[in-house]
Amino acid sequence: MKKTITDNTIDADILAYTVGRDTVLDLDLAVWDLMGTAAHVTMLSEMPVDPPVVTKDEAEAVKKELGRIAKKVADGSFKILPEDQDVHMAVERLLTERLGDLGKKIHTGRSRNDQVAVDVRLHIKNEILRSELELAGLCAALVGKGRENAAIPLVGRTHLQPAMPSSVGMWATGHAETILDQLENLEGAYRLADKNPLGSAAGYGVPLPLDRRRTSELLAFPSTLHNCFAASMARGECEAALLCAIAQAMSVLSRLAEDMILFSMPEFAYFRLPREFCTGSSIMPQKFNPDVLELVRSKTAQTVGLATASLSLLHAMPGGYNRDLQDCKALYMEGLSIFRSTLRIMAKVVDGMSIDAVRCREAFSPGVFATDAALRMVAAGTPWRDAYHDVRDHLERLSGEDPDKAIAAKTHEGTTMGIDYNLYMYRIQSAGNSASGRLEALMSAKKALLGA
Amino acid sequence: MKKTITDNTIDADILAYTVGRDTVLDLDLAVWDLMGTAAHVTMLSEMPVDPPVVTKDEAEAVKKELGRIAKKVADGSFKILPEDQDVHMAVERLLTERLGDLGKKIHTGRSRNDQVAVDVRLHIKNEILRSELELAGLCAALVGKGRENAAIPLVGRTHLQPAMPSSVGMWATGHAETILDQLENLEGAYRLADKNPLGSAAGYGVPLPLDRRRTSELLAFPSTLHNCFAASMARGECEAALLCAIAQAMSVLSRLAEDMILFSMPEFAYFRLPREFCTGSSIMPQKFNPDVLELVRSKTAQTVGLATASLSLLHAMPGGYNRDLQDCKALYMEGLSIFRSTLRIMAKVVDGMSIDAVRCREAFSPGVFATDAALRMVAAGTPWRDAYHDVRDHLERLSGEDPDKAIAAKTHEGTTMGIDYNLYMYRIQSAGNSASGRLEALMSAKKALLGA
Amino acid sequence: MKKTITDNTIDADILAYTVGRDTVLDLDLAVWDLMGTAAHVTMLSEMPVDPPVVTKDEAEAVKKELGRIAKKVADGSFKILPEDQDVHMAVERLLTERLGDLGKKIHTGRSRNDQVAVDVRLHIKNEILRSELELAGLCAALVGKGRENAAIPLVGRTHLQPAMPSSVGMWATGHAETILDQLENLEGAYRLADKNPLGSAAGYGVPLPLDRRRTSELLAFPSTLHNCFAASMARGECEAALLCAIAQAMSVLSRLAEDMILFSMPEFAYFRLPREFCTGSSIMPQKFNPDVLELVRSKTAQTVGLATASLSLLHAMPGGYNRDLQDCKALYMEGLSIFRSTLRIMAKVVDGMSIDAVRCREAFSPGVFATDAALRMVAAGTPWRDAYHDVRDHLERLSGEDPDKAIAAKTHEGTTMGIDYNLYMYRIQSAGNSASGRLEALMSAKKALLGA
Amino acid sequence: MKKTITDNTIDADILAYTVGRDTVLDLDLAVWDLMGTAAHVTMLSEMPVDPPVVTKDEAEAVKKELGRIAKKVADGSFKILPEDQDVHMAVERLLTERLGDLGKKIHTGRSRNDQVAVDVRLHIKNEILRSELELAGLCAALVGKGRENAAIPLVGRTHLQPAMPSSVGMWATGHAETILDQLENLEGAYRLADKNPLGSAAGYGVPLPLDRRRTSELLAFPSTLHNCFAASMARGECEAALLCAIAQAMSVLSRLAEDMILFSMPEFAYFRLPREFCTGSSIMPQKFNPDVLELVRSKTAQTVGLATASLSLLHAMPGGYNRDLQDCKALYMEGLSIFRSTLRIMAKVVDGMSIDAVRCREAFSPGVFATDAALRMVAAGTPWRDAYHDVRDHLERLSGEDPDKAIAAKTHEGTTMGIDYNLYMYRIQSAGNSASGRLEALMSAKKALLGA
Repeated sequence: MKKTITDNTIDADILAYTVGRDTVLDLDLAVWDLMGTAAHVTMLSEMPVDPPVVTKDEAEAVKKELGRIAKKVADGSFKILPEDQDVHMAVERLLTERLGDLGKKIHTGRSRNDQVAVDVRLHIKNEILRSELELAGLCAALVGKGRENAAIPLVGRTHLQPAMPSSVGMWATGHAETILDQLENLEGAYRLADKNPLGSAAGYGVPLPLDRRRTSELLAFPSTLHNCFAASMARGECEAALLCAIAQAMSVLSRLAEDMILFSMPEFAYFRLPREFCTGSSIMPQKFNPDVLELVRSKTAQTVGLATASLSLLHAMPGGYNRDLQDCKALYMEGLSIFRSTLRIMAKVVDGMSIDAVRCREAFSPGVFATDAALRMVAAGTPWRDAYHDVRDHLERLSGEDPDKAIAAKTHEGTTMGIDYNLYMYRIQSAGNSASGRLEALMSAKKALLGA
Repeated sequence: MKKTITDNTIDADILAYTVGRDTVLDLDLAVWDLMGTAAHVTMLSEMPVDPPVVTKDEAEAVKKELGRIAKKVADGSFKILPEDQDVHMAVERLLTERLGDLGKKIHTGRSRNDQVAVDVRLHIKNEILRSELELAGLCAALVGKGRENAAIPLVGRTHLQPAMPSSVGMWATGHAETILDQLENLEGAYRLADKNPLGSAAGYGVPLPLDRRRTSELLAFPSTLHNCFAASMARGECEAALLCAIAQAMSVLSRLAEDMILFSMPEFAYFRLPREFCTGSSIMPQKFNPDVLELVRSKTAQTVGLATASLSLLHAMPGGYNRDLQDCKALYMEGLSIFRSTLRIMAKVVDGMSIDAVRCREAFSPGVFATDAALRMVAAGTPWRDAYHDVRDHLERLSGEDPDKAIAAKTHEGTTMGIDYNLYMYRIQSAGNSASGRLEALMSAKKALLGA
Repeated sequence: MKKTITDNTIDADILAYTVGRDTVLDLDLAVWDLMGTAAHVTMLSEMPVDPPVVTKDEAEAVKKELGRIAKKVADGSFKILPEDQDVHMAVERLLTERLGDLGKKIHTGRSRNDQVAVDVRLHIKNEILRSELELAGLCAALVGKGRENAAIPLVGRTHLQPAMPSSVGMWATGHAETILDQLENLEGAYRLADKNPLGSAAGYGVPLPLDRRRTSELLAFPSTLHNCFAASMARGECEAALLCAIAQAMSVLSRLAEDMILFSMPEFAYFRLPREFCTGSSIMPQKFNPDVLELVRSKTAQTVGLATASLSLLHAMPGGYNRDLQDCKALYMEGLSIFRSTLRIMAKVVDGMSIDAVRCREAFSPGVFATDAALRMVAAGTPWRDAYHDVRDHLERLSGEDPDKAIAAKTHEGTTMGIDYNLYMYRIQSAGNSASGRLEALMSAKKALLGA
Repeated sequence: MKKTITDNTIDADILAYTVGRDTVLDLDLAVWDLMGTAAHVTMLSEMPVDPPVVTKDEAEAVKKELGRIAKKVADGSFKILPEDQDVHMAVERLLTERLGDLGKKIHTGRSRNDQVAVDVRLHIKNEILRSELELAGLCAALVGKGRENAAIPLVGRTHLQPAMPSSVGMWATGHAETILDQLENLEGAYRLADKNPLGSAAGYGVPLPLDRRRTSELLAFPSTLHNCFAASMARGECEAALLCAIAQAMSVLSRLAEDMILFSMPEFAYFRLPREFCTGSSIMPQKFNPDVLELVRSKTAQTVGLATASLSLLHAMPGGYNRDLQDCKALYMEGLSIFRSTLRIMAKVVDGMSIDAVRCREAFSPGVFATDAALRMVAAGTPWRDAYHDVRDHLERLSGEDPDKAIAAKTHEGTTMGIDYNLYMYRIQSAGNSASGRLEALMSAKKALLGA
């Protein structure tokens, strides 16, 4: 197809190097490409030029056909052939088979850069919203686990050393809160993506009265990326923002995984993973390994690499579209796949994990009570320095302390008995509702353009 | 000082390795540390315990003394001694010199982790707001330069090859828009930082009725980081978010710098830097090199490294405070220093750069007009494919085309003659106002706590 | 298969998350896994225990069968089934189908960690040697192009600004030398990989008299990784070393690509790529874009990300085998695939590129001769400072200078007329011979263990 | 100074941005700069031109003066003034003060790029050799600790779960071996640096008969970087290679640190750090934290960031010298400082660490003996699968097993009782001798050029 337009025969090795895995990766963009084309053709048919570039009837015919292709995408029968090279040409091929030259006319006033820019933004928006729902699901699992075990004492640590009395509830909601905070980064990436680039052509506009705000409206973008040159440059920025947000969120998840790996070691055994979540060893009969959690760590490192790659790729790139930007696609898609599968698997693991309350309580050594004891002395009038030294020199006096009493004594906001579980449920629900609402708007726009 | 509390004599080599550059870096935290302490002591004096931990009068005495130290910070006479190790101990030393044991009592119910967490967040908030003002300044310089040269044609490029007619106005505002969009990332980092962690003690709370919302109010934080364990974990997250935002913004700046390096080469000479912005060569008499712009590229790479380091540092770290987190401090401070100086220097360079309108126009080769010519044929009824081939095979026919007419013919939103300069000025002003407003609130809180 | 040994039913989601793409990636390891097994079983049959773990006849039967499987690998009919999970189990399945319990007995005294460690090292050795041959091929293309155009003047640049007279020969061999130097990094990675880890079992050895030096000999490893615990820890180190070497080499290649992108812009046109190496545009009829070279830049960024990921993955990992290490496999395989295809495509592009001698000469502006002119004045007795100023203030005097004479006047080692092309050919040949020799040794060992 | 040559007045802000921290960083290069200049002037005085650029007597006068400055460097009285901007101008200032115009004449035929390239390579060579000695020292501490505790059983782990019997000797030498292997990477970086770039001028040579092999000989470089253009491009490659080698070595050290952090937790207490190596807490009286080891982890992350920055910086940089390369200097210097201080501190910590043999033995749970038990059954004729299941289902039978016997039963190469401590001592000694020998050669060259 491509060759029929540009008439340029490309060397086979060069072609293989440049096309890469596009024929596979672009399948994820197909539905968004159809949406973008439907919006563009609608706008073209409304454009005040005489004769019209496409008539309203032609636009309807194209949209009907796009809807038909959308069904093929949905049922898996849409294919990108090697000679198509990318999704845009595959769609054009199908349109042309059915509609002849009309299938080509609809590209008036845009370029493939333009198309892929809008595809990627719609795809990213959809994926971020779905990952936010999955993130909310993981947090709900953590808060549920915490609430269920709210009053079970847990040795709080700093520097991994036993530090002060904590609780399972505090541990679980502490991780949940840190994970929830990552929504800020995801939302930052969402806002960057939530601007319509369509109508920038190859980055410099065209001598046609394109109505770019009309396509924004049709595609449910709240605003339009104004400058056409910016529209082409901004492409890699969205992907980098997404990958940075993912790498940060994964780093938070890796800390949760690390805690679960450490404290399910038999020497602690505070937590226990179901056997069916663990893998055995071909040589060691006794083994049940938390491979799934270790892989959360390594996949975190992978996302750091993906974020780094995306930033390094942008480094010192000249303005305007450059082919390097195409390679952002594989990076962000891999990042999303890692992130979403990790969110889902962690929700399952947290949900399935059981707490050994006996081991949790047994683990309290006298030192864990030291700070509280010193503070009690201070409250009773001893200067802090004297209390500190006295407690440190007589830790053995604390050997009979009761972990349950210790955690019950801490009641200010956010400490062991000051955790507000409803606050978390409220935040999780709000986040979920916000993501769902926007997903619905996106799905409505899709339905309006492509049919059911 | 430290040793008087913990009584632990630390090996000199170990101490040197662990303290690192804290005595220098912490100077930037000093004013925020004083603010945090003033808020904490105010809250302590209001805490409903009998006897009070500190009386209202004692609190006033401490705050007066903190105000005095704040003046020393402002005039540069505040010093952190090697034996202090960090800013917290330096402040305690000064307080104790004047107030005796009261100087120590005020640490009741908090730890140094707690203090540094609040210091870092206040510092980051202040720095982000100031960098947003500087970013707005750079964008204003770009939009000004663009508006001034709005109608000067510029060869638009993709893949660095001449592509389509563009204009200096489009180029300058295109970069400005991409840079303005980076406010999303900075604001994401701001929101992460804008929660009060104070009152988490060492990450597990204390058996005292701390009123954490009161310190939030005093320190002008709109909300409180709820979970104390989360408060200690979240420390590295703020720094990573900031460094990721900076690396992304720098990557955008490096693209602007690259364009300016390329197109001020004598072979293009579209842009000219003032001689006093260029460096010469000790061996080549004819040289004027754009070192300053090259360094924007390399400093971009440095910030990518800093972001990577911060993410890698968090990878698989156990929950709760770990000393690794302390090393985030040098990373984010270096990132901020690079970012803010680059924003300022770029504003100056953009402002000083002149445009050679003659060279800009001379640079239009016939091919640059090809797409427009083909679109005109399409408008006149030729099918796109035929127009495309006809134009390509007769590029020589386009040798008389007028660049000024070409850019005048493109009028839809965001193309050469569809740039809305007022839109940019409005966005820049809004961003500036938003940052200024928040800076004022922060400064008011500071004044209320520490005096003028 | 796995389940028949460990009897542990793993949750399907967990399994999907943990197995990942192993069934695909492991195909590249298959032949090396067969070699490792053949060496292990040979050693087992020679082990001085009574009764023997496997008899010599049994060992021969196993090796014959392994040879048969090697043929399936070679002809593409070897498959890893989903239930196999990895190559080791796929091989065991095939062996057991034909040999019954003997197929399992051969795993005595080793674990899958052990197997994959040796597979990866053999694979890496083979790939490094092949990439060195490809790197030598690219350098030969560069040196050939340089020698062919040795006397064509080229504007030498620093800071991208015209600097001093250079030549196409100097440019091409300069890049060749920098690329050749990267062999140091690849050889460092090779030496790290060139130690036999086999016989470490799960990282702690076994109570059996394994003869680890015997398998080293059979597998053509010049030495044995001594400590079994080190053998399991070292796994990720080999991959990180390889990825760091690749990222460095790619960074050098990206600089070559950048030069070719810049100087094939029509404004320079020193270099011209064949049309069939360029891609066109769907909207701009006049376009021929060097996409292939732009992708070398972006793939360089990808390898930086892969190196970062591998280093980040190792960060703070506890000693001994951890599942994270398995994720190094996909990273290094992707890095190798990028690296080798880039070396091959660049050799082709360099080979196909033509030089426009007229444009190269036309590009000499007076300033390029300034340093030489000043040095001539110095040679004639003028102090350097005076010469420098005099030349700078009268650049117009240099407008008639002859580029060919300028490059002919520089004759010391390594300057325009001091390039020793034979030196490069000698280095390239030596590197090629060294890699070929080692490849042959590896192939001989393979043949001895698995048959033709 | 600079301004007296180039006469270019640079804007103060631009100057501040471009000079950066050079006046501090360059102090580390001073002695190498003096050496490079001494070699260059010697070569100039021998150059067969008439009249000579500098006479032999002039050369001697310059070298005497350079020796005098070298003494100032050694005693700390050498300063780089702000107006010098860098070490080269500081040296020129001092020379000119004493020798007048001769102080400038010696720059004939070289540029500052040339000078700094040779300075950096000499500095890197010196630093790598010294870090190799420090690395050998750490390994000697580990091997010493291992030999001393060779027969103390230790629970061997995979996935952090108890796996098989190991020993303190195996653990310590396993880490030592992995660290020693990192010499391959350091040596790769050394070989890249060990080529003389001097005589390339600004990267294109000069029309003078420079004898580049003569300066190689004087500076103890075994070979000359042939191509002058390559000499200027190669600059960043050396730094990237060094930083990649450092990041890899640090990643290995971070794994040692992680093991020591984990197994000195009171729940394990296999290892104990001296109290004076630990830091306390201002709020928790009972605390002794291994901050020093945690910082090894975070500094590892920092070096990953530095390596990433150096690679990202090189990405897509045009050929020839670009100012970006100057920013590699701060990166590699920071990397070296982190690396060398970490090697030294870890040697001290390993040396000071004590082993609690009682806790090490108590930690053996029955499962640790499972593999050995199954292998014994196999040796007695039970098929592996049956043995595996039988052991797994009756782990309680293993509760009386003796750890000492278990480790004594494993005797093949590299397992608990098959560790060859002499092999390690031999490798350490060889590495030390190799580094020392090269250091001596470098110091002799320095003495010959600059006097005692």
